[in-house]
Amino acid sequence: MAKKLSTLPLNLRGPKPRMPLYRWLYEELRTTILAGRLHPGARLPATRDLATQYGISRPTIVTAFEQLRSEGYVEGKVGSGTYVSKTLPDELLQAPRAKSEARTRRRGIPLSAYARRLRPLPRSESRSARAFRASQPALDAFPTGLWAQVAARRLRRVSTRLLAGGEALGYRPLREAVAEYLNTSRGVKCTADQVLIISGVQQALDRAAHLLLDPGDPVWIEEPGYPGAAVVFRAVGAKICPVAVDSEGLNLEAGRRRWQQHPRLVYVTPAHQFPLGVTMSLRRRLSLLEWARRSRTIIFEDDYDSEYRYSGRPIPALQGLDRAEVVIFAGSFTDVLFPALRLAYLVVPSDMVDIFAAAESVSTHHPPLIDQAILCDFISEGHFARHVRRMRELYAERLSVLVESAGLRLAGLLEIPVVEAGLRTVGWLQGGILAERVAQAAAKYDVEVVPLSRYAYGRARSDGIVLGFAAVDARELRRGVEQLGRALQGCRP
Amino acid sequence: MAKKLSTLPLNLRGPKPRMPLYRWLYEELRTTILAGRLHPGARLPATRDLATQYGISRPTIVTAFEQLRSEGYVEGKVGSGTYVSKTLPDELLQAPRAKSEARTRRRGIPLSAYARRLRPLPRSESRSARAFRASQPALDAFPTGLWAQVAARRLRRVSTRLLAGGEALGYRPLREAVAEYLNTSRGVKCTADQVLIISGVQQALDRAAHLLLDPGDPVWIEEPGYPGAAVVFRAVGAKICPVAVDSEGLNLEAGRRRWQQHPRLVYVTPAHQFPLGVTMSLRRRLSLLEWARRSRTIIFEDDYDSEYRYSGRPIPALQGLDRAEVVIFAGSFTDVLFPALRLAYLVVPSDMVDIFAAAESVSTHHPPLIDQAILCDFISEGHFARHVRRMRELYAERLSVLVESAGLRLAGLLEIPVVEAGLRTVGWLQGGILAERVAQAAAKYDVEVVPLSRYAYGRARSDGIVLGFAAVDARELRRGVEQLGRALQGCRP
Repeated sequence: MAKKLSTLPLNLRGPKPRMPLYRWLYEELRTTILAGRLHPGARLPATRDLATQYGISRPTIVTAFEQLRSEGYVEGKVGSGTYVSKTLPDELLQAPRAKSEARTRRRGIPLSAYARRLRPLPRSESRSARAFRASQPALDAFPTGLWAQVAARRLRRVSTRLLAGGEALGYRPLREAVAEYLNTSRGVKCTADQVLIISGVQQALDRAAHLLLDPGDPVWIEEPGYPGAAVVFRAVGAKICPVAVDSEGLNLEAGRRRWQQHPRLVYVTPAHQFPLGVTMSLRRRLSLLEWARRSRTIIFEDDYDSEYRYSGRPIPALQGLDRAEVVIFAGSFTDVLFPALRLAYLVVPSDMVDIFAAAESVSTHHPPLIDQAILCDFISEGHFARHVRRMRELYAERLSVLVESAGLRLAGLLEIPVVEAGLRTVGWLQGGILAERVAQAAAKYDVEVVPLSRYAYGRARSDGIVLGFAAVDARELRRGVEQLGRALQGCRP
Repeated sequence: MAKKLSTLPLNLRGPKPRMPLYRWLYEELRTTILAGRLHPGARLPATRDLATQYGISRPTIVTAFEQLRSEGYVEGKVGSGTYVSKTLPDELLQAPRAKSEARTRRRGIPLSAYARRLRPLPRSESRSARAFRASQPALDAFPTGLWAQVAARRLRRVSTRLLAGGEALGYRPLREAVAEYLNTSRGVKCTADQVLIISGVQQALDRAAHLLLDPGDPVWIEEPGYPGAAVVFRAVGAKICPVAVDSEGLNLEAGRRRWQQHPRLVYVTPAHQFPLGVTMSLRRRLSLLEWARRSRTIIFEDDYDSEYRYSGRPIPALQGLDRAEVVIFAGSFTDVLFPALRLAYLVVPSDMVDIFAAAESVSTHHPPLIDQAILCDFISEGHFARHVRRMRELYAERLSVLVESAGLRLAGLLEIPVVEAGLRTVGWLQGGILAERVAQAAAKYDVEVVPLSRYAYGRARSDGIVLGFAAVDARELRRGVEQLGRALQGCRP
């Protein structure tokens, strides 16, 4: 009986392909012990029985037993009998419980206050682009071959030093290239020492929020505005204070009337307001800076989409007018090149460089270094500037296709204002048509539009939709306008 | 007089190469206005005077004036006189103040509590590797050509979809490859759904700290232990509770005696304790899990350096023994491949996947997608497993060189215990030699060693140093031992 017990009831599953036999036996025995089918103190099958039963060599079995012994599952010496260890706690000897939502909820691992405030940012669409995808540049026109060439050249001659990792602030030559680009093209006044390379503007927001805001601190955001900013500020516990946008940008006076308390930080998109497209006037810029200086408020300038301007002249960045070092300036490479890249830059006042570097060092060490080097090559070889010029022409064309077909097909239903810059525009619905209904109807016609209300923290106009015109070609834009026309007809009140 | 005033005192600096003339003139006039050399209300020089004085065409000047007017710097119409705008606030009309530390400190932009607690993680050495660099794999043996090939192949056939970005959790095929690798090689029990791709273990720590800890929450860390963990927990305001490490790993009983309050989280390196190299015993693992389950404590298992084991057998991860879903498991690709890569993985209990994904979406969207795809190709084509095998052999060789030469040259001065795994070892100083003195003396002999005390949060033994043996070749290791011998001789009390 004893002999039978030691050999038969184990009923191990047969050896697995590509797994060494000793490993298989070890795992099967371990599972058997943990599942309670071999109790603490139970004798393990004799090696010769196992050898006969499973047709494996005794040395293999001895190896498996030794592993089990070295890990404390079994005790005793091979030859004089091997026994399941008595020190295994009860918990491990139960059969694995079935996974259940109930159990998960019951155990209740507490989350931090930050986690409880956190809301996910919806991911961008995974299906291929269609009219009027707003969150994407013209990836069909991205020079992948050229990028691959530049990357391959850098990768072939990569140095041990580059492989070893770099500074928290980013790859120095890239920081210099960015400083030069920003000084020349964006009117930003900075040295490379103030430039940090980061993994996207979203990370810049997250970093600034963590470093500058405590729970309860008021933060002004534009209304309507970029939802990725509000979600970050909310997660750190800031008090979100939406401020209306008028034809000159964020309405400072309206904000001061509405919110008694001075904010700690103001988030703005002065070059090209997200999503309305307004450019902040110089007068408004100067008032905002002066007020921020007096009230010790930090201005976070998101230089979103500023590379693409079709009419009017570029107005230099708010940062370039700042004499009091209150502006943090952020811009991204991902909208110009491709979103998967996750590289952006941050220009911070010189006395904030160290604390931003410390945060980077503690949270990620630094952004991936080879990507930074490839991007740096792409810029310094002139490809970046050429790509921006090419895309500006392409987007101007696509914009005019949208405006012309909308003028022909959507007259009386949708009015598109003059678009000076960017990859998207707002469209104003006519005759009482409601944006939320349009978005639903458009989806049925295989067209994407976003109601303006999705970008509002509080109340929003119900007659605005956002249309992207950069991601798809003229033909798809025309199809989109036709289909949107049908959708709009069906939404008339 | 009026005419003279309007033309002479401006004294603009001459046109700049590569800058359009209108842009140069615009910038010079703007600077002049902002510096107060042209007061609000002052009349600008007549276009014909400027044309004569600087030898540029009048249309160029008109363009510059119009830009200034569109931005609100000047008022009036070309022809009837152009005047500096009266709405410029005083602040902008002062000459830029010289940068000074004093001013920076005086303005006092307040930082968050998080920022005030933040301490930077020192960056790794930028000079090339020498004996006994501990923080680096053998980059001299990294197959850069092969990596470049795999990368180039992926980049050439990159899809628009890949360029568009991906899921917060990471590139799905990579998550599947990681799950398979961890199940097979590390005894981790998980599905791909529980695997998150992140930008390094440091980020995994940062993420977990933000999601699970509130200020004041106690956290146990190993003493001595990985400083990158303590710095993260400290920054979120956790109460750091160091717990001694004995021959079985983190000493649970010592921790319970020393700290009354249950911790919210325990950080451990069970595979190969950092920096002592101890492997946590099975008995200790089981007790730790059982205690964590009862006290609802999260265990953060850092599977640091576990790929390289030279003797003994690999013990499966703590995570693989966990039935109560209390273990968060983290491991990195950067120690196996190269630090600049910044890619790692996190395996979290299934009910925590969503919150970790939300944090990723809000703070960075996702790690760079093409890097993930390249790494995935590198793994699925078998290169990763081959590289680990090759490196394991190389490191075993390098380790034996260190042990042998130390046995010959450092007998009576330094004792190296049996090294079972990893890229580094502790060395115990003999005869009362002090580690801090050795580190200083070694630096003079062009050798790097780290005193154990640098890895301690509180008190630490003063007779331990950490030596890396993976980063440099046999010859450099022998040189290092010779030189260290000289340094040690000079440190005898």
